[in-house]
Amino acid sequence: MTRIWDVTLPYSSRLPSWPGEGRPTIERISRISDGANANVTRLSACVHYATHVDAPVHFIEGGAGVDALPLEALIGKVRVIALPGRSRVERDDLGSSDLAGVERLLIKTDNSALWNDLDHEFCEHFTALSVDAARWIVASGIRLVGIDYLSVEPFGSPEPLVHRTLLSAGVVALEGLDLQAVEPGDYRLICLPMKLVGADGAPARVVLTEL
Amino acid sequence: MTRIWDVTLPYSSRLPSWPGEGRPTIERISRISDGANANVTRLSACVHYATHVDAPVHFIEGGAGVDALPLEALIGKVRVIALPGRSRVERDDLGSSDLAGVERLLIKTDNSALWNDLDHEFCEHFTALSVDAARWIVASGIRLVGIDYLSVEPFGSPEPLVHRTLLSAGVVALEGLDLQAVEPGDYRLICLPMKLVGADGAPARVVLTEL
Repeated sequence: MTRIWDVTLPYSSRLPSWPGEGRPTIERISRISDGANANVTRLSACVHYATHVDAPVHFIEGGAGVDALPLEALIGKVRVIALPGRSRVERDDLGSSDLAGVERLLIKTDNSALWNDLDHEFCEHFTALSVDAARWIVASGIRLVGIDYLSVEPFGSPEPLVHRTLLSAGVVALEGLDLQAVEPGDYRLICLPMKLVGADGAPARVVLTEL
Repeated sequence: MTRIWDVTLPYSSRLPSWPGEGRPTIERISRISDGANANVTRLSACVHYATHVDAPVHFIEGGAGVDALPLEALIGKVRVIALPGRSRVERDDLGSSDLAGVERLLIKTDNSALWNDLDHEFCEHFTALSVDAARWIVASGIRLVGIDYLSVEPFGSPEPLVHRTLLSAGVVALEGLDLQAVEPGDYRLICLPMKLVGADGAPARVVLTEL
């Protein structure tokens, strides 16, 4: 039996949301305990809540929607690296790692420890990519980059240059991972977002398996 | 490169919904064309719309939520069988197939052709399982059964016996597949539903790969 690591956040309205986007409403619209035939839930949420991917159209007008992300980028061999103790992932952090041939990269930072408390208030000082790191990722041929808080971009960036750099090059941005239980190394990634037609992002279920 | 079949319906408000549950609302709450920093979408939907899985608590009060479905049932070898030309999948249809050792079963019926027209009105006469077929599935040790319309249960059933039979035994019900492009045979299934805490179901992205 292949071991499976579920690196997806448990989706409920407890998790912090991106400021201004609000938390989801998850409600039972039909209840067996009220005499209904079935329990039925309705979800109302921003597509960038919890573990999710960004599509090019999130920051690039006319860009591709999340349903058009190539499954070949979302499924396959992935490298997990650990970069603790920094507020930015810099170009040199990546350049000095051995990432030759890597097509999918997950970056485990101090962010992951924030998920020990799922109810924590949104943390503005999470670790994110520098613009130069994003450029390095594009230049190296990486097709997907994942990080363990709600954005690849530092909070309060005057311009969304990290997103624009990645998304305009067709790099999938995977955000909101919980990598606490995962050691650095090589795995098989399966990242399956909802197939939301034309949408700027989608919640994703993300697992790692042994190679 | 492993070939991948995406058997997930494209998720938009065009698809038929289960009567009474309504179609989703998918709206841009922020638009670059209106001067915003980013395009941001909000989704509001019943969790049983389009391609989705059912959790035990859908029909069994106190049952497990969709986040507790074992990944080992959702990922692994799967048998696809074709059963055209019938309104019910009967016990004998399964008993006369060679399903020894099969843990995951997808049933391709005439339903799949309905997805040639994504805008079609909800079809009440879709092919579904008989109660005896559901019992056969449980007895045979199958852990997941998938079908190509919105329910494993015939429309208008006086009691939800097919669901109760499957869900009380811990069999995952996978509904709303589009199997048009898939030939009968053995594949690897990857069925990843949203990790909705305690919910009765969740939209799922479902792909098949070569073994």
